[in-house]
Amino acid sequence: MTTPRPTLSVAMIGHAFMGAAHSQAWRTAPRFFDLPLQPRMHLLGGRDEQRVTAAAETLGWESTTTDWKSAVERDDIDLVDICTPGDSHAEIAIAALAAGKHVLCEKPLANTVAEAEQMAAAAASAAERGVRAMVGFAYRRVPAVALARELVAQGRIGTVRHVRAQYLQDWIVDPEVPLSWRLDKERAGSGALGDIGAHIIDLAQHITGENIAEVSGVLETFVKERPVAQGDTSGTLGGGGGDEGATGEKGPVTVDDAAVFLARFTSGALGTFEATRFATGRKNGIRLEINGSRGSLAFDFEDMNVLEFFDASEADETAGFRRILVTEPGHPYVAAWWPAGHGLGYEHCFTHQVVDLVRAVADGVDPTPTFADGLQVQRVLAAVETSSLTRTWQETLT
Amino acid sequence: MTTPRPTLSVAMIGHAFMGAAHSQAWRTAPRFFDLPLQPRMHLLGGRDEQRVTAAAETLGWESTTTDWKSAVERDDIDLVDICTPGDSHAEIAIAALAAGKHVLCEKPLANTVAEAEQMAAAAASAAERGVRAMVGFAYRRVPAVALARELVAQGRIGTVRHVRAQYLQDWIVDPEVPLSWRLDKERAGSGALGDIGAHIIDLAQHITGENIAEVSGVLETFVKERPVAQGDTSGTLGGGGGDEGATGEKGPVTVDDAAVFLARFTSGALGTFEATRFATGRKNGIRLEINGSRGSLAFDFEDMNVLEFFDASEADETAGFRRILVTEPGHPYVAAWWPAGHGLGYEHCFTHQVVDLVRAVADGVDPTPTFADGLQVQRVLAAVETSSLTRTWQETLT
Amino acid sequence: MTTPRPTLSVAMIGHAFMGAAHSQAWRTAPRFFDLPLQPRMHLLGGRDEQRVTAAAETLGWESTTTDWKSAVERDDIDLVDICTPGDSHAEIAIAALAAGKHVLCEKPLANTVAEAEQMAAAAASAAERGVRAMVGFAYRRVPAVALARELVAQGRIGTVRHVRAQYLQDWIVDPEVPLSWRLDKERAGSGALGDIGAHIIDLAQHITGENIAEVSGVLETFVKERPVAQGDTSGTLGGGGGDEGATGEKGPVTVDDAAVFLARFTSGALGTFEATRFATGRKNGIRLEINGSRGSLAFDFEDMNVLEFFDASEADETAGFRRILVTEPGHPYVAAWWPAGHGLGYEHCFTHQVVDLVRAVADGVDPTPTFADGLQVQRVLAAVETSSLTRTWQETLT
Amino acid sequence: MTTPRPTLSVAMIGHAFMGAAHSQAWRTAPRFFDLPLQPRMHLLGGRDEQRVTAAAETLGWESTTTDWKSAVERDDIDLVDICTPGDSHAEIAIAALAAGKHVLCEKPLANTVAEAEQMAAAAASAAERGVRAMVGFAYRRVPAVALARELVAQGRIGTVRHVRAQYLQDWIVDPEVPLSWRLDKERAGSGALGDIGAHIIDLAQHITGENIAEVSGVLETFVKERPVAQGDTSGTLGGGGGDEGATGEKGPVTVDDAAVFLARFTSGALGTFEATRFATGRKNGIRLEINGSRGSLAFDFEDMNVLEFFDASEADETAGFRRILVTEPGHPYVAAWWPAGHGLGYEHCFTHQVVDLVRAVADGVDPTPTFADGLQVQRVLAAVETSSLTRTWQETLT
Repeated sequence: MTTPRPTLSVAMIGHAFMGAAHSQAWRTAPRFFDLPLQPRMHLLGGRDEQRVTAAAETLGWESTTTDWKSAVERDDIDLVDICTPGDSHAEIAIAALAAGKHVLCEKPLANTVAEAEQMAAAAASAAERGVRAMVGFAYRRVPAVALARELVAQGRIGTVRHVRAQYLQDWIVDPEVPLSWRLDKERAGSGALGDIGAHIIDLAQHITGENIAEVSGVLETFVKERPVAQGDTSGTLGGGGGDEGATGEKGPVTVDDAAVFLARFTSGALGTFEATRFATGRKNGIRLEINGSRGSLAFDFEDMNVLEFFDASEADETAGFRRILVTEPGHPYVAAWWPAGHGLGYEHCFTHQVVDLVRAVADGVDPTPTFADGLQVQRVLAAVETSSLTRTWQETLT
Repeated sequence: MTTPRPTLSVAMIGHAFMGAAHSQAWRTAPRFFDLPLQPRMHLLGGRDEQRVTAAAETLGWESTTTDWKSAVERDDIDLVDICTPGDSHAEIAIAALAAGKHVLCEKPLANTVAEAEQMAAAAASAAERGVRAMVGFAYRRVPAVALARELVAQGRIGTVRHVRAQYLQDWIVDPEVPLSWRLDKERAGSGALGDIGAHIIDLAQHITGENIAEVSGVLETFVKERPVAQGDTSGTLGGGGGDEGATGEKGPVTVDDAAVFLARFTSGALGTFEATRFATGRKNGIRLEINGSRGSLAFDFEDMNVLEFFDASEADETAGFRRILVTEPGHPYVAAWWPAGHGLGYEHCFTHQVVDLVRAVADGVDPTPTFADGLQVQRVLAAVETSSLTRTWQETLT
Repeated sequence: MTTPRPTLSVAMIGHAFMGAAHSQAWRTAPRFFDLPLQPRMHLLGGRDEQRVTAAAETLGWESTTTDWKSAVERDDIDLVDICTPGDSHAEIAIAALAAGKHVLCEKPLANTVAEAEQMAAAAASAAERGVRAMVGFAYRRVPAVALARELVAQGRIGTVRHVRAQYLQDWIVDPEVPLSWRLDKERAGSGALGDIGAHIIDLAQHITGENIAEVSGVLETFVKERPVAQGDTSGTLGGGGGDEGATGEKGPVTVDDAAVFLARFTSGALGTFEATRFATGRKNGIRLEINGSRGSLAFDFEDMNVLEFFDASEADETAGFRRILVTEPGHPYVAAWWPAGHGLGYEHCFTHQVVDLVRAVADGVDPTPTFADGLQVQRVLAAVETSSLTRTWQETLT
Repeated sequence: MTTPRPTLSVAMIGHAFMGAAHSQAWRTAPRFFDLPLQPRMHLLGGRDEQRVTAAAETLGWESTTTDWKSAVERDDIDLVDICTPGDSHAEIAIAALAAGKHVLCEKPLANTVAEAEQMAAAAASAAERGVRAMVGFAYRRVPAVALARELVAQGRIGTVRHVRAQYLQDWIVDPEVPLSWRLDKERAGSGALGDIGAHIIDLAQHITGENIAEVSGVLETFVKERPVAQGDTSGTLGGGGGDEGATGEKGPVTVDDAAVFLARFTSGALGTFEATRFATGRKNGIRLEINGSRGSLAFDFEDMNVLEFFDASEADETAGFRRILVTEPGHPYVAAWWPAGHGLGYEHCFTHQVVDLVRAVADGVDPTPTFADGLQVQRVLAAVETSSLTRTWQETLT
């Protein structure tokens, strides 16, 4: 018999949309990947006892708590997985790291640069003690995205000239969609910019291997008032987020509906970015196109198992954007799953995130994206906000 | 507290590609869907003790057996899930039904019409005793496919005129791919026809709600000899199926590489069908296009979250095939998962299959596809084989 | 000054849809291509004096005639371009060739094999006297199609295994579309089969470089009676063909609405063919997919400037169907037109046809497709019709 | 007999890429459209006698001149069509208008706002005398673009929220592509911005019916020096523009390779614009996506016969971007051409431009786009350039 592998005991704080995705990842990862540690879905934390109990049963956690502070200090917890809204990330993550727990923190890392800096410092300090921290930019681990990064790193597209990145949703186009925590600056930090813009900033920097150096942008709130929802509760499903009955009363939308900005990368490449919840008909359209001196790449999450690749070294007569079905065994993460052509879905990128995190913990190395990566994204977000207010270009690097 | 829901204790026989897919389904279904019975992954059956033990650990089954015969009679088993090659389906299914166990049987139902008839008879008899049987044409439960059926049933495309159906793979284009059980008529029953052709026959009949009445077809084996694989074992992953080292020896391929046939549906609609493992570059291209008097539908599994729909009642100036992203809450099965635009993958159709099966068992109704549906597919398969030998049209209905 | 190039004096018989396309080609070809002979749009023939006069003014012909017989014998005519319905092709073409005129004859070559044989014999005999004959399968000269043929000829897709070819239209889905000459067997010879099926038969044989050896097929007329059109006239625009007011009376449709057939090519490759006017939502969907041992090609006329190409020699990780925009200067016919990316339209394939025809005449070589090529297509058409009646496989080669 | 229609005698100045496109339009328009005036391709102007003579023969003009000044004053000329580089537009157009000739002037209207203002003033003054002026933003008359404008005007997409517009080419990605007039600020005015950015600015304003109010942008020249071409000549084909042999010497590129900018429309809608010659693999990718409160539109010139349309009033379950094949008789300009599904090409938009111009002249109304429209585009171009220098937002309206 094989020796049973050591356990990695997990406490997850928050149990809404992201909590469901992370739970499925913790459950599924060891079934398809050979992990050095066996994750144990030990403890689920939430604010309301009744709701956290129900969630634990649905999502498959052994026990519950409404006291995250003591939870992150418990001896029988190895890792804290933070799935709460952004305003609580810093406090929980810093406490957990201080208590020697590995941390997986949902994105965006924090609601402010100041918080993100504290978190990055805490993570750096923790790393010296062998404690690991990762921020949950899960889309990095869509196989097509991971392949894109590999191709850039291999020089297949040469010097990057252009990045065009869009994250297009439409769930609040209707002005009758009520207010929810995602439309409240106190809770969410920002709107489309922080919620979805953060993803395309991270993806663009990750795939190209370059940081954004400066930005000029605009934030806009097209619908300035919305119905007040009854019984709005923390951390409900984001894509919906507004099916609670409305009261007739209206309240202000305090975050942006859309953010657009130009970016200059450290190499000189030009970027155009657009994050919006007002792209009617686009549901989760994460689109990236990168043009380089030797080739180009294009990705759209609405066809997530595909990467398009143009190789300029090909003869003109047979060159063309290739629709690579990223389901071959040689593609990142794919061999663990199904035969060629049997595509993966949204949740699989969370499973891959868990796999890489568990392996990093076991190997004693820092997983990526690090909190420093999350901080860099936060700086870009802040620069865009400032730029929108001042109508000037803003630098994003310290 | 809520009363704990009753348990449905499952024994699964076979643990290769299909076994992995079914395991993920049994594990995941109760996490996302509110099931009346709680599935218990109780017992895994296989021929080799060492391999079944390893598989049970990987796939998450509590115990194992190498004796399926006694397994299907155990008192602590409620349902038998058959994931073996087709040559053993009849024996296992009939025994399980006789023992009063519900049965989920992978497709094709059997390797011969005679076996399938016995199975359908056994299922009919079992149904009278409240014992349920379902054949695993899982692609029916891809949300886009389920939506297609709904639209046809609602009359949105009118009278069906044309069905064109293709199942395109390319995993044995290379003549050096070695022999495996899937290329052995004794074990597999047939090649592309039974393995993948069965799916498009079922899907075409399911979506249109019509049976195929007669066929004229051709089977072809392009590569007639292949290297003999060392250590070929039962039920290995189908899409691969040939990663065992070759010996230098060659053996005959006894099944078809490709099958093409014309079909006439009961309503008079015309069908063209094509199942092949020689469509270079197509990995799992299940394509269906259905033209009716009022509209058309098109589906391609390589973009599985999408259904294309043409509505001829639309004004000519704005009519066009719509790319429906089948990820809205109102779409079949989707509400249980993620927000709009966050697509599902291959394995989810197995989860939906489990959901519908468990609900049917709890509700005391027959799940679909029934064994009678599986028998009808078997008759079409047999008619195509006969047609290929006799070069004549063959009827498929009794 | 350059010596003026010699003139090629053209008489065109027929002035409906095809007449308009051919006229544009004769007018445009010398403006973009360097032709050895200067076409002169000399004489337009039609049955009705008033209508042919109006057509000549619109289409740009110098003079008119209602007597094609004397026209094809006139000394001042070098080439006869036949754009009439199929029932008159043989008589006109044979007379013109006998009179020593080069002939361009619209497809299908004739309405029967017997006629086509006579025409091919006449063409062979004329060729000995330096008189040229070409049948107008114009789609061969869409640049993407011409590129497809080149890639097959270069061995880029290896041995052909599968051809799937569809010509999908929907202009008579509505049962109230009235009768027209295209729905009358006497005039049109056949329906979807001869009108559009002929094109995909020719394209499949042309691109693969292989003939169809045998077929098994079905013809179907879904709508058996239609309103009688008032004032139906010869050779009206095919795609419409029914905007004449209806009388309330109904008459029988004597041709097929759809034809589907299986084909075996001389090399053993398998083909599935489908020609239909009942593919709701498909307007001019000429689709070809060819799978070979080393690669695949796919084309759809509804995106006519594109050829898809899968190259199996590419590494699995970066292989994918390439969307080749066939607008590069190195692509067939393209250099004469616009910069890269500035696509061509339907009519350009007729211009290319004129270019190749004029050059062949000047060079004293036989243009392709020859009347023998047209005869081979006719034999396939006849075999499909016979097969549909006899429900047997039919050979197509003599 | 019908009375012969009056003649419209045309002098065209310039005979390179645009001259070829305009010639084909003048020749073709009266063959497919019923025009109130019969265009006469009377006089072709160019700088070099030998070259203009050869061009006139190729393009089909009756006579030639090397003296545009006297040409625009000749009594036998009714309309002057200006196809020269931008630095000569103002002088020629103003002279022609002053001489009472109608003017069609290629875009961009001029190289500077000052020139454009003079031209717009001249056009306004001429209009009072019944003399017409039109600027050649031909892409407005691609049927899919014209349909897009109609749908916006009908309110089908509601209030516009987002415009994303890209014009992507790649013909100078290779740093060895030599200098040509298009890379010379003196001659071309600007690079990607004026050459192709002008088109998407015009299209965005035209389709939405709104002007751009302010911009923030960046111009970039990625390759700052290029080989000096031997024998560079005026007005050579733009897309190529560099096939003259290189000398070994290098010279500076004085225009932008790429321009990106954010825009705010008068209504508050947000725009992102990108014009580049460095989008490897994109040949003539004019892409527009417009999101409104009730729907969305998307267009890509690389599939120019298609408009995508999302109608948010559709039920969620069947909503999706429709691929409208803009080849129906009811679509703008289409009825004059071929049956449904038989697509048009690049050059057809020039034919439509001639049709609308000739009809406006005959009807005594101002054709669009007017010189005032051209001036508005020029102001946006200038604002982007200023913004790039000052790194500030710039207003574009006076």
